[in-house]
Amino acid sequence: MTPDDPGVARSLVAGSWIDSTDFLPKVPDPMSGGAFLKIPDTTDIDPFIKSLRTCPKSGLHNPQKNPQRYVELGQVCAKAAAVLAEPEITDYFTRLIQRVMPKTWKQCKGEVTVTRVFLENFAGDGVRFLARGFSNPGDYPGQESRGYRWPFGPVAIIAPFNFPLEIPALQLMGALFMGNKPLIKAATTVCVVIEQFIRLLIHAGLSPSDVDLIHCRGSVMGKLMEQARGDLRLVQFTGSSGVAERTSKIMNGAVRLEDAGFDWKVIGPDFQPDWLDYVAWQSDEDAYNASGQKCSAQSILFVHENWAEALLPRLKSLAAAQEARQPVAGSVLSWNNQEIQSHIDAVMAIPGASLLFGGQALEGHNIPDCYGAYQATAVQVPLHAVAGDHFELVTTELFGRSRWS
Amino acid sequence: MTPDDPGVARSLVAGSWIDSTDFLPKVPDPMSGGAFLKIPDTTDIDPFIKSLRTCPKSGLHNPQKNPQRYVELGQVCAKAAAVLAEPEITDYFTRLIQRVMPKTWKQCKGEVTVTRVFLENFAGDGVRFLARGFSNPGDYPGQESRGYRWPFGPVAIIAPFNFPLEIPALQLMGALFMGNKPLIKAATTVCVVIEQFIRLLIHAGLSPSDVDLIHCRGSVMGKLMEQARGDLRLVQFTGSSGVAERTSKIMNGAVRLEDAGFDWKVIGPDFQPDWLDYVAWQSDEDAYNASGQKCSAQSILFVHENWAEALLPRLKSLAAAQEARQPVAGSVLSWNNQEIQSHIDAVMAIPGASLLFGGQALEGHNIPDCYGAYQATAVQVPLHAVAGDHFELVTTELFGRSRWS
Amino acid sequence: MTPDDPGVARSLVAGSWIDSTDFLPKVPDPMSGGAFLKIPDTTDIDPFIKSLRTCPKSGLHNPQKNPQRYVELGQVCAKAAAVLAEPEITDYFTRLIQRVMPKTWKQCKGEVTVTRVFLENFAGDGVRFLARGFSNPGDYPGQESRGYRWPFGPVAIIAPFNFPLEIPALQLMGALFMGNKPLIKAATTVCVVIEQFIRLLIHAGLSPSDVDLIHCRGSVMGKLMEQARGDLRLVQFTGSSGVAERTSKIMNGAVRLEDAGFDWKVIGPDFQPDWLDYVAWQSDEDAYNASGQKCSAQSILFVHENWAEALLPRLKSLAAAQEARQPVAGSVLSWNNQEIQSHIDAVMAIPGASLLFGGQALEGHNIPDCYGAYQATAVQVPLHAVAGDHFELVTTELFGRSRWS
Amino acid sequence: MTPDDPGVARSLVAGSWIDSTDFLPKVPDPMSGGAFLKIPDTTDIDPFIKSLRTCPKSGLHNPQKNPQRYVELGQVCAKAAAVLAEPEITDYFTRLIQRVMPKTWKQCKGEVTVTRVFLENFAGDGVRFLARGFSNPGDYPGQESRGYRWPFGPVAIIAPFNFPLEIPALQLMGALFMGNKPLIKAATTVCVVIEQFIRLLIHAGLSPSDVDLIHCRGSVMGKLMEQARGDLRLVQFTGSSGVAERTSKIMNGAVRLEDAGFDWKVIGPDFQPDWLDYVAWQSDEDAYNASGQKCSAQSILFVHENWAEALLPRLKSLAAAQEARQPVAGSVLSWNNQEIQSHIDAVMAIPGASLLFGGQALEGHNIPDCYGAYQATAVQVPLHAVAGDHFELVTTELFGRSRWS
Repeated sequence: MTPDDPGVARSLVAGSWIDSTDFLPKVPDPMSGGAFLKIPDTTDIDPFIKSLRTCPKSGLHNPQKNPQRYVELGQVCAKAAAVLAEPEITDYFTRLIQRVMPKTWKQCKGEVTVTRVFLENFAGDGVRFLARGFSNPGDYPGQESRGYRWPFGPVAIIAPFNFPLEIPALQLMGALFMGNKPLIKAATTVCVVIEQFIRLLIHAGLSPSDVDLIHCRGSVMGKLMEQARGDLRLVQFTGSSGVAERTSKIMNGAVRLEDAGFDWKVIGPDFQPDWLDYVAWQSDEDAYNASGQKCSAQSILFVHENWAEALLPRLKSLAAAQEARQPVAGSVLSWNNQEIQSHIDAVMAIPGASLLFGGQALEGHNIPDCYGAYQATAVQVPLHAVAGDHFELVTTELFGRSRWS
Repeated sequence: MTPDDPGVARSLVAGSWIDSTDFLPKVPDPMSGGAFLKIPDTTDIDPFIKSLRTCPKSGLHNPQKNPQRYVELGQVCAKAAAVLAEPEITDYFTRLIQRVMPKTWKQCKGEVTVTRVFLENFAGDGVRFLARGFSNPGDYPGQESRGYRWPFGPVAIIAPFNFPLEIPALQLMGALFMGNKPLIKAATTVCVVIEQFIRLLIHAGLSPSDVDLIHCRGSVMGKLMEQARGDLRLVQFTGSSGVAERTSKIMNGAVRLEDAGFDWKVIGPDFQPDWLDYVAWQSDEDAYNASGQKCSAQSILFVHENWAEALLPRLKSLAAAQEARQPVAGSVLSWNNQEIQSHIDAVMAIPGASLLFGGQALEGHNIPDCYGAYQATAVQVPLHAVAGDHFELVTTELFGRSRWS
Repeated sequence: MTPDDPGVARSLVAGSWIDSTDFLPKVPDPMSGGAFLKIPDTTDIDPFIKSLRTCPKSGLHNPQKNPQRYVELGQVCAKAAAVLAEPEITDYFTRLIQRVMPKTWKQCKGEVTVTRVFLENFAGDGVRFLARGFSNPGDYPGQESRGYRWPFGPVAIIAPFNFPLEIPALQLMGALFMGNKPLIKAATTVCVVIEQFIRLLIHAGLSPSDVDLIHCRGSVMGKLMEQARGDLRLVQFTGSSGVAERTSKIMNGAVRLEDAGFDWKVIGPDFQPDWLDYVAWQSDEDAYNASGQKCSAQSILFVHENWAEALLPRLKSLAAAQEARQPVAGSVLSWNNQEIQSHIDAVMAIPGASLLFGGQALEGHNIPDCYGAYQATAVQVPLHAVAGDHFELVTTELFGRSRWS
Repeated sequence: MTPDDPGVARSLVAGSWIDSTDFLPKVPDPMSGGAFLKIPDTTDIDPFIKSLRTCPKSGLHNPQKNPQRYVELGQVCAKAAAVLAEPEITDYFTRLIQRVMPKTWKQCKGEVTVTRVFLENFAGDGVRFLARGFSNPGDYPGQESRGYRWPFGPVAIIAPFNFPLEIPALQLMGALFMGNKPLIKAATTVCVVIEQFIRLLIHAGLSPSDVDLIHCRGSVMGKLMEQARGDLRLVQFTGSSGVAERTSKIMNGAVRLEDAGFDWKVIGPDFQPDWLDYVAWQSDEDAYNASGQKCSAQSILFVHENWAEALLPRLKSLAAAQEARQPVAGSVLSWNNQEIQSHIDAVMAIPGASLLFGGQALEGHNIPDCYGAYQATAVQVPLHAVAGDHFELVTTELFGRSRWS
């Protein structure tokens, strides 16, 4: 995967990998800007819709139909987990994630670990136990109520850029377990990762016709959903709230949206010097790892005055040490420098606000302009400003390494 | 229920209430010593064994047989709970409990409330939902595993004196819900209470042949279990550990024993004056209400030195206040004064032990000698004595109002 | 509730019953056409929105806040169930339902019974057990994961005409149990029923400020939802699919829709004469009771030729007998005669279709023209017609007593 | 493992493998009678009791203590399952089982598969999810009830000969998962299998001090339990009912006994020729595989007269075919030929009984006299004899290949 020898992605439909001739204009290397990947610019969506339609509402399996598939999928999980646990395979996926979504090695490896443990959780009888039904005695002799967990049938998964493996992998497995036939579309910047994971599953015994994978623009996926609306039973969407709302409109609410959170941290009032190092480390880690691009990233730190004097300098030096070790931690795929700077300026304009640390664009790197490259930044804002007129501004999510307290 | 007009108890077998001619020599009134109750001294156990044998291993009902009985028992619960919620019925059972097991009105009423709420919990569909089974997809098409909750069939319940209603009532209902046919034997001093409760259930729709009740000596019940051993599937026993072991031997381990606990309370080290009143009140309440005759009564109070100075006098004055309000709180049905005094003497002989308060037999009452009548007592013992050679002595349970800290 | 002395409904907001001066032009008596009810034509929606806003996202209670409310609501259930079980109260609600939604006595009483059993199911500790959370051991000492069931906060319930008590009552209780503050709007033709039920709950101990009730036109409720969209966390809607889709649009998918079903019955091929009477009775009952206005009403009967000869005449005579006993079973609130006739004509136009029985408008009654009044009707259609071009037509739901086989 | 080079077993205590100098006199090869295994004749039980005592009642871990061990044990499961899934390891354990407990390859491999799937079931988060606790809202603000799953602490497992891997492995893992410290004693004829499995677990990351393994006579184990009775919290016993009762007596009922079953099969009355082959095959398989030494082996076949004529000859020829393919299927470790012959004679003496097939001791083999070697045998007994006086005789379990119908 270099500009000289770019990686080539392929879509999967009805059990076959598709060779594409049209590719997206450029998927820039997040660290150097080169065109290191050829991602299909799929426009012919008919085969994908046709493949979805082969799956009835009753799914590929359910507790009454093809129950042996639950056990088979348990075996796929066991095998795939064992393969993923081999050090070279773990490293391969960790490197692949880091190549397309610049995060620390630990963060990237975390995705591989979570995915492997998830597979382990459903190894053996895990899938069929998930399909556990119930019975209740009825009103009169011979009557019994039974409840079964039933699939949706044809479904779609739309996955974001920030967790290239973990998010689509877990959503995909869940859909497969219960008998659905999922069509996956991942963010084009990172979609090679889920493709490799699907190849791993097939190696571990998954039938290639159980899942479809489409590499395409978002607009094409929108068109596909509109045309397949009558057949698609559910869309699982993870990403920005704007696209979420549009997707919900297309599907008349037949969507599952991955929820975000504010992830505010409240520290104090009891000041315990023994805990200072730990609290500082955890606060730094929660705010700035993954270049801050996690839904669970801590975005506001409320610090009680008992803690402020000791904690804030510690946070600054931790951020500085991190910067020293790794001057360019990674690019921010969803905000560019101009947007980041504007937001910081706006927050700084709040009366009483002051820059704790950071606040500068990074230099000496090859991160392309379309991505952000910024220091870990924290802006201190008085508490009354957060609660008052500036609430909307202060609580706007900047999906990168900028935090305030 | 007075010596002049004693209450007469009746056993229930195979749906009929039995008039007895032989009665136990004397069931003394716990507060005055008079013979206020005529409890049958049943020795003819054959009808009870025969009645147990009418119920097969598959029970009176199970998820495949007579499922309508689950709903019917739900209706019995709803009706019985509604009746028990009527103020005069609540009061009737509260007074009846207090008459045979001297506890505060609040403690006695607590039994009625717990029993009523338990009935409410299983009103409606509660019983049948308890019999919820499960299904799991099998290995190949057409196969499915199902699991059902199954009854034992004929079972026995042996209930103690200290909670005349709550303990046998809850155990009885649980046995009935799942399709068992229970035979109940309660402590002869208090067995009128569960008889009245069974009459209430029959009023609320229970078939009188669903449960048998035997009033007899413990030795007779032992003989019954030995003879019915091949048919009795399980014995639920609540009471002293000695009889528990004997019962377990007769039944070869096919017993369920209600477990006790040490119920030690650890206070400190953080002393919070704001909480002093609450902690003192709760400690007093947990130790001395119900004359201390609860399995959950606090038996040792470990007090950190930060708390001791403030807390111990408070405990003493609470006990004194209680004594002033109600000089004779109640009798101790399972230890007499001599036994209580010996135990206190033995604990006091531990080097460093001192009497905190109490330590005297009560006077000016008519409690018969076979029962205990003693002040609320606390002995302070150094911590090292508890952990050392005197461990067995200090942790011996005196089922009455004597505690140490 | 007569034209001379019409019943007057009142809305409930923020704990107070509202006297209205504006009423809907006419809510005709379904059997005689008279104006027997005065239903408020509420247009001032501000108090209702304001009341919703008093409830935060964390609800009126949750496992961390006001947990005593779970037990209190359990007590409300126990009390309300006991009251509803009193014969005169059961009869009162049965008559009230029948007065506004003409169904057989048995059908109306069924609603009361189901509602009472539902209350019994949550009496006692039922509500708090519903709020059961979980814990899992964490990754390292001191860590533990906890999960809690959380309320939505302010919610709305929109209820249909065909089950005036059962549907809104169960939805209301579920919302209350978990700590939500629900605003209910029921179909104006039947909304007196839920008002009476709310009065019963308040009698049984519910705080009047826990629930709001609005009597208004559907368009007003739509406006209310649009204005309160930012606060309303969820809308529970039961009714036609058209309004369901509009509601989903307003709420951006934050809706729960009660699902309907096709409720087709397949009979055969094994013909068992012993079962003929039972099958015929059950088919008749499932199709025509409640004037056919149940989501679970059987709408197509697929009869194997082994059964047809014996079964179809039996169905006809059962319908005739029913007609003889009760010539005017009830009005159809959602289709008028003209619409019913058009639909029957269309189905009859299918080649091979024939009228089994019925097909005539009822006469000699006072049912107003805005409602339907029609014989129990069945049209026989060849199987190939159902599966072929006429699929849409044959499977259109006519919410009344017309079925085909 | 040959007489020339016998395998040597070692006990494990407090984390160390013990070299023994005393061995049991002879553990004969079940197929040739040679002394192929040296099993320690342990008599010094003190180190084992001491090791048990190192584990407190609160276990090696519980939801409040060392929670990281749940995850670690999940990792051990994942690793051990992956290793066990490698073909050469699967084959190794299959051969090892077959060497000490002669069963078909398929039966032996079945044990390995079941054990591997069990490990997979608890891989990942499976162990910690098993320790899931619950919470319920309390009665007043600040109160919450929590329930946790708690270990017993020191426990023992006594395992039988017929499933050398599956039974002790599953029981061992269950004990470990919940924080117990188990001491295992397996039947001396097969105890090498569980030793090898424990070595596999240690390779997969289990701490060797988490489990103790003792190779000794049953009488020594009895002595150990008596001496450790005060510390041993529970004994899991699988084996004959006689030893089960003795164990229960020693432990005062603190035992868990693996239950057997009658496993009767009822065939008919509806005779379906299409199913004849399948029914015959399944009946043969259920009765005679594993040399009949399974608790789940079918022991009586009730055949309706509609089926008898077709089915019984089919059973005979299946047994004959099996005999032809594999004249000496295996030895019966718990009954010798004389005992088997006596039992068959006794059953044959029932009026109306006749030999369907089998009934002869096997010849031309080296199975030692202490074990049984007998043809697959079936005795036909009239139904009234089963229900009547001969009930006890007919239902006596012969743990080998002899069945009647």
